[in-house]
Amino acid sequence: MQSVTPEQTLAEPAMQELLNMLGINVEYTRAEGDTLRYVGPDGTPETVVDYAGGYGALVLGHNHPALVDTAVTFLSERRPVLAQASRQPAVDQIAARLNDIVGREFGTDERYFAIFSNSGAESIEVALKHAEFDRVLRVRSLLDEVEAHIAEVAAQAQTVAPPPGSGADLSTVLSGLRRDNAEAAARPPVFVALAGSFHGKLVGSVQLTHNPSYRTPFAGLAPAARFVSLDDLDAFDRIAEETRTVLRDVRVVDGVAVVVERPIPVVAAFVMEVIQGEGGIRVVTPAQADRIRQGCAALDCPIVVDEIQSGLGRTGAFFASSQIGFAADYLTLAKGLGGGITKTAVTLVAQRRYRRDFALVHSSTFARDGLSTAVTARVLELLEAENGAAYLRAKEKGEKLAEIFHDLRRRFPGVVREVRGRGLMLGLEFDDQSGSAAPAIAGASANGMLGYVISGYLLRVHRIRTFPTASAANTLRFEPSLNLADADIERLRVALEALCVALRDQDEQALMGGGAG
Amino acid sequence: MQSVTPEQTLAEPAMQELLNMLGINVEYTRAEGDTLRYVGPDGTPETVVDYAGGYGALVLGHNHPALVDTAVTFLSERRPVLAQASRQPAVDQIAARLNDIVGREFGTDERYFAIFSNSGAESIEVALKHAEFDRVLRVRSLLDEVEAHIAEVAAQAQTVAPPPGSGADLSTVLSGLRRDNAEAAARPPVFVALAGSFHGKLVGSVQLTHNPSYRTPFAGLAPAARFVSLDDLDAFDRIAEETRTVLRDVRVVDGVAVVVERPIPVVAAFVMEVIQGEGGIRVVTPAQADRIRQGCAALDCPIVVDEIQSGLGRTGAFFASSQIGFAADYLTLAKGLGGGITKTAVTLVAQRRYRRDFALVHSSTFARDGLSTAVTARVLELLEAENGAAYLRAKEKGEKLAEIFHDLRRRFPGVVREVRGRGLMLGLEFDDQSGSAAPAIAGASANGMLGYVISGYLLRVHRIRTFPTASAANTLRFEPSLNLADADIERLRVALEALCVALRDQDEQALMGGGAG
Repeated sequence: MQSVTPEQTLAEPAMQELLNMLGINVEYTRAEGDTLRYVGPDGTPETVVDYAGGYGALVLGHNHPALVDTAVTFLSERRPVLAQASRQPAVDQIAARLNDIVGREFGTDERYFAIFSNSGAESIEVALKHAEFDRVLRVRSLLDEVEAHIAEVAAQAQTVAPPPGSGADLSTVLSGLRRDNAEAAARPPVFVALAGSFHGKLVGSVQLTHNPSYRTPFAGLAPAARFVSLDDLDAFDRIAEETRTVLRDVRVVDGVAVVVERPIPVVAAFVMEVIQGEGGIRVVTPAQADRIRQGCAALDCPIVVDEIQSGLGRTGAFFASSQIGFAADYLTLAKGLGGGITKTAVTLVAQRRYRRDFALVHSSTFARDGLSTAVTARVLELLEAENGAAYLRAKEKGEKLAEIFHDLRRRFPGVVREVRGRGLMLGLEFDDQSGSAAPAIAGASANGMLGYVISGYLLRVHRIRTFPTASAANTLRFEPSLNLADADIERLRVALEALCVALRDQDEQALMGGGAG
Repeated sequence: MQSVTPEQTLAEPAMQELLNMLGINVEYTRAEGDTLRYVGPDGTPETVVDYAGGYGALVLGHNHPALVDTAVTFLSERRPVLAQASRQPAVDQIAARLNDIVGREFGTDERYFAIFSNSGAESIEVALKHAEFDRVLRVRSLLDEVEAHIAEVAAQAQTVAPPPGSGADLSTVLSGLRRDNAEAAARPPVFVALAGSFHGKLVGSVQLTHNPSYRTPFAGLAPAARFVSLDDLDAFDRIAEETRTVLRDVRVVDGVAVVVERPIPVVAAFVMEVIQGEGGIRVVTPAQADRIRQGCAALDCPIVVDEIQSGLGRTGAFFASSQIGFAADYLTLAKGLGGGITKTAVTLVAQRRYRRDFALVHSSTFARDGLSTAVTARVLELLEAENGAAYLRAKEKGEKLAEIFHDLRRRFPGVVREVRGRGLMLGLEFDDQSGSAAPAIAGASANGMLGYVISGYLLRVHRIRTFPTASAANTLRFEPSLNLADADIERLRVALEALCVALRDQDEQALMGGGAG
């Protein structure tokens, strides 16, 4: 096999060039807990604290020993990885365990059905497909009911008068209703999402990902979603008005046909994160959640809560949405569900919405595989052990980090703008520096690269790994494992302190100088 | 954790019920090569030969020792699984190795760029996104060129006459061109696929999957694709006519503005399998491939060849499309790429089509992970070892199977209808039995369940595992590993012989009786 330099790579060279430019294109060789190791250009072994945490997937850290053990044992025992269409107890156990958690955290006894897939984006696509499958069946059922009424009235045509003022005979009126109803029922679905959202980048899901640079190049591939801003949730009322669609039903009152409007659902689902990850770690408040719930009730649409990044305990509960008492119709999970080793995603659908026949039209070769689901079952065991000790730890470690961030914000005005998030899902927003007297800092900030420059500095100088959130480039993400060591917190504190000094002093040599990796 | 019976499962119960009905809901406990093991209800250990092969993913069989070793070593050494945005040599090596193979099999020195994802369906979605990204840029570039010409002519307005017969002054003509061009450039993309296709079930890909029961419930989620049948490839001409869209360019000839039509691409891609897997193992002929190539050239659209099931060597070459000399613009791989252990998918894009900036707008948390890519690199090593011995083996084993199938077809007319496929990607189509004198056989056949009943019989009575193809339910799939043992071939021969006798004799007791697994 030919050897490849980063410059020669045939695997997304543009990304490699970006990493080279930032001086962070290092090759990690070992990973445990929150620690990544690499060997520097001069042969020195280096130890990095990983606050990027696999974009939120490393809830239990890199290569958690129990998960490695589960995977190694599974493989060593030659258990079946791909034996689709057979009995798979791990799949059933995961579904049951997730139901235990849902029941406890949301205080419900409603069951949630689990549909497995392979990535966060896939779990969203499954939700979109299921929601539309369900919507079409709801519309059809109402249409059938209305059609039956129309047929009944048509059968009594001799004795029933047309609606007063219709200016036509009964049969003309009824065929008009049928035509209008067929047209109304065929109206295409609308999906609604929150501004600032990130729900993945596949053909369907990318249209629910708000960032225009990810979304608009692909606008021709799927219908546009409607976005509502957390600052203007009255947009729900406008959407309700604009999408209002009715079937025209008929009944007979005192020998006269009376037309009655029957609204049908056009919005297939509202999709949201309760803590927007890539949008800059933005937390939805309970009041906002109430307003959303009310808006969705008026739209007669299910709520899909994307817990892909916020779920699995990092906010101090398994589901971040449970902390604001927000029980959605659909919950999507991925990232941490694979334990940082495998790829598992699950879409949970509340029984009140679940359509059993969906299983006969949707499937995936890799979903429900033995190895991933064995690891996922173990992930859930670890998280649920000792009465929720892991969730408590996330809360406590998160509070320590947040305290450091808030202290910096107080001490470095004009540098640190805001601290957001909950538990170990934290965002640190830096002030725009495009007015800086240091030209390189000003330029990077004006080009939206300030967060990347800061990330590069933290890695090169302090061996701290993190990145900006994807759609809010001045916000750094902090999503370490639930087992984060106090020494690693201290190391971050020292690094951020130095960073804030360099930014305050507009010290571009400190910030942007220094050798790569 | 609560214990779960199949009847209580919250993970797609409809599927479990189907498996129970067919008596095949067994729990496999061990898997090696082409062998699956389970323990029967009376405690007897049972050995099953697996011809379903993970729907084509088990090119190297279950738990290939070298791949298990790679995965176990990777995990034991605590190598990083999720270290996104760092240097990942395995990823570069896979891309380079796939290029070596492409170069050898297609006789090209054009490079193919690799975009990684997590499932076959995702690799198709990546192709759709990239093709549209590229199409929009091609349209925009032509639009810019035309706009520049219009601006040039407008600047000479004093000395240039409007086009003869335009009946308007020059500036009116030019602004008309601009308006028409903006409208033409905004025309939404069209995707074209083959009838009988299967390209996955995500929001975008499912619209390219021909089977209406998978596709039409989700028609509201993405624009409909156009399908052309292998029996009517002249449909390309009709699509070319219907989608023909031009920009209206202008140049000056002898002081007179002349309007010139410039066609723009509207069809974003043509997507196909060269051996349709779920469509019933249907092989595209070289003549059909030529006609397709010609049709796509007329549409000015790239060709995406889905090698998700046919790729990785099972047809006797790494790429089935190379066997008919059909070098596509895009090649998608998944299934076998994960070695039956992990989940890797790759979309290869020819340099002539590749857009480097796509890497900046498309990404995935799980794609390019260390564990999957380590296994994939090893899969490629194993397949490529000993000068292609693996591909030769697939060809030879496949010929043995095909010989048995053809023999049965000759000896059991009215039972075996057709044998299709190449190498170890074979389909055995059974005749419709809805006219059978045995009511249970006739009923199953009339309900499209004959293939499932046959699968159930083969597993229960002969411990042979296979399934019908997803969209051609009378065709059984045979996709064992490249290392299939002769003893397993003989076991299949005996089982199929007994099956054919039972079908010929309309012996529903033999076919449908007998206890479950």
